[in-house]
This record gives sequence, C-alpha cells and structure tokens, in this order.
Amino acid sequence: MILFRKARHSDLPAVVKLLADDPLGQSRESISHPLDPRYEEAFAAIDGDDNQLLAVAVDAADQVVGCLQLSFIPGLSRTGMWQGQIESVRIAAGERGSGLGSQLIEWAVEMARERGCELLQLTSDKARPDAIRFYEKLGFIASHEGLKRNL
Amino acid sequence: MILFRKARHSDLPAVVKLLADDPLGQSRESISHPLDPRYEEAFAAIDGDDNQLLAVAVDAADQVVGCLQLSFIPGLSRTGMWQGQIESVRIAAGERGSGLGSQLIEWAVEMARERGCELLQLTSDKARPDAIRFYEKLGFIASHEGLKRNL
Repeated sequence: MILFRKARHSDLPAVVKLLADDPLGQSRESISHPLDPRYEEAFAAIDGDDNQLLAVAVDAADQVVGCLQLSFIPGLSRTGMWQGQIESVRIAAGERGSGLGSQLIEWAVEMARERGCELLQLTSDKARPDAIRFYEKLGFIASHEGLKRNL
Repeated sequence: MILFRKARHSDLPAVVKLLADDPLGQSRESISHPLDPRYEEAFAAIDGDDNQLLAVAVDAADQVVGCLQLSFIPGLSRTGMWQGQIESVRIAAGERGSGLGSQLIEWAVEMARERGCELLQLTSDKARPDAIRFYEKLGFIASHEGLKRNL
C-alpha cells in the first residue's frame, strides 16, 4: 500500500537520495552523512511557506519511494488565477513502471484543485523524452517553451 | 525616465489593463470599473506573500508602462537552489521596441540574484515566437518543454 503525504524532516535524507538517483540529478546533488546543510536550509524554507508542499509517496514500512514539490502560485493573469507548479518529481528505481508516478501526479492534481488552482504546470528537460511522453499521457500539453537562464 | 518598483494597490487597474492588451490576454481578462473582485483577491494574495513580487515599470508621470510577476521558489534540487520565475510580462503598446522589455527583465534578474536565486525561469507560449526570440537574446535557453494541464 502506498500513501501520499507531506514530507517530514525525518524524510529529508531519503528524498535527497532520490533526487540524486537520476541521470541528470547525480551530478547536481551532494550525498553525505550528515546531510549537506544547504538541504536543511532549503527544507526549512519550503516547510515554512504555506504555498510550498514537499510531498512523498511512502510504502507500508513508511519508506520513501517517490517525491515531488508542488508550489501554489497566486497571479493576476486570467482574472486572478492560481496555478500549481510541480518540480523535482522522482520515483524510486524499484517502483518505476508500476504506475506510482501517475498516482503521485494525480494526487498532486487533487491537492492543487483543493487549493483553487485552475492550471497545473511543469517544465521537463528536452533530454528526458520519456518523461515528456509520461506527462502528455496524463493530459499535459507541451504548449510552451521552458526557458532558463543561469544567474 | 523609467523606474522599476514593486506594484502598489493603486497600480492595479493599470496592470490589469496591460494584461488585457495582448492577443492572447484579451480573451482571458475582464476589464471593468470597478475592477473585477477576483483581481483584488489575487493582488492581496501576491502582496501578502514575501516570495511574490509584482513589479511595474513607470514613466516620469508614474504611469504604468510595463509589468511582470517574479516568484522566488525554494527547492531541494541542486543542493537546495532557489529559483526565480517570471510570469505575466507586459509592455505598454507605445513602449514596445524601445528596449524597455529588456531593461525590465534585467531588473528582475537583479532582484532574483539579490534573493539568492541561481536560476531564472519562465515559460513562453509557442504561439509567441517573437517573445521566445526576445528571451533567447537575453540569455535564456529553451532547454525544457513547458507542459500545462487545465484543472
């Protein structure tokens, strides 16, 4: 049985491990014990912001098997529409292909609806064609370019 | 002389008018006097959130000639990197082509840097090729698909 819930501080090492277990993520993350303090600071910033939801999927033993971050963004456009935004989606290697990813996204859709969001958006690296197909199957439309600039 | 600053409540009608003065925006916005209360609610939500900055460009007479929304988003990925995100960029018709758009974006870049963001992102509708070229000239890379799902 898989449960979806808000991440707790005790989940943080497992979430960082998931973020690093990825072709693009492995060079970007820093795995150590104790945890790099930058992750602790980021967790505190996310946890202290009502418009940020770091979520995990956990198995029956309460082990983290998936994660994502959902942001709730107020805006003026489209008569003051709130948007949900998804980042940092990861599924544990042993659970990939099980449908867990789709369930996690659909759970996030419900969370965004509950908060009054009328649109859910995300960007996906063009170097991840499988991920893009995954989101398109779930009803996302690649109508936009996702543009990034390093600062 | 153009000044960039945080939007005040008194700027709201002018900002909504700018949002509507756009091929895609005109069908999405609601222009009325008094203003549609959904804009008032959205302004309050943005103004009350330290991680949202609704900004305007004003001329010497303090008239709004441009706007954008900048969100500061904490995240775990990339060792706890903060991201800036830009939405709802508009330049008044009479000021287009004057370089004001570039100045507004570069001002937002500085605001994002001041808040410790290491990446600035935005999505641009593929139906706006001129806008995409504009951002690419400013150093943004279209490395990602921008995927959206209506809720």
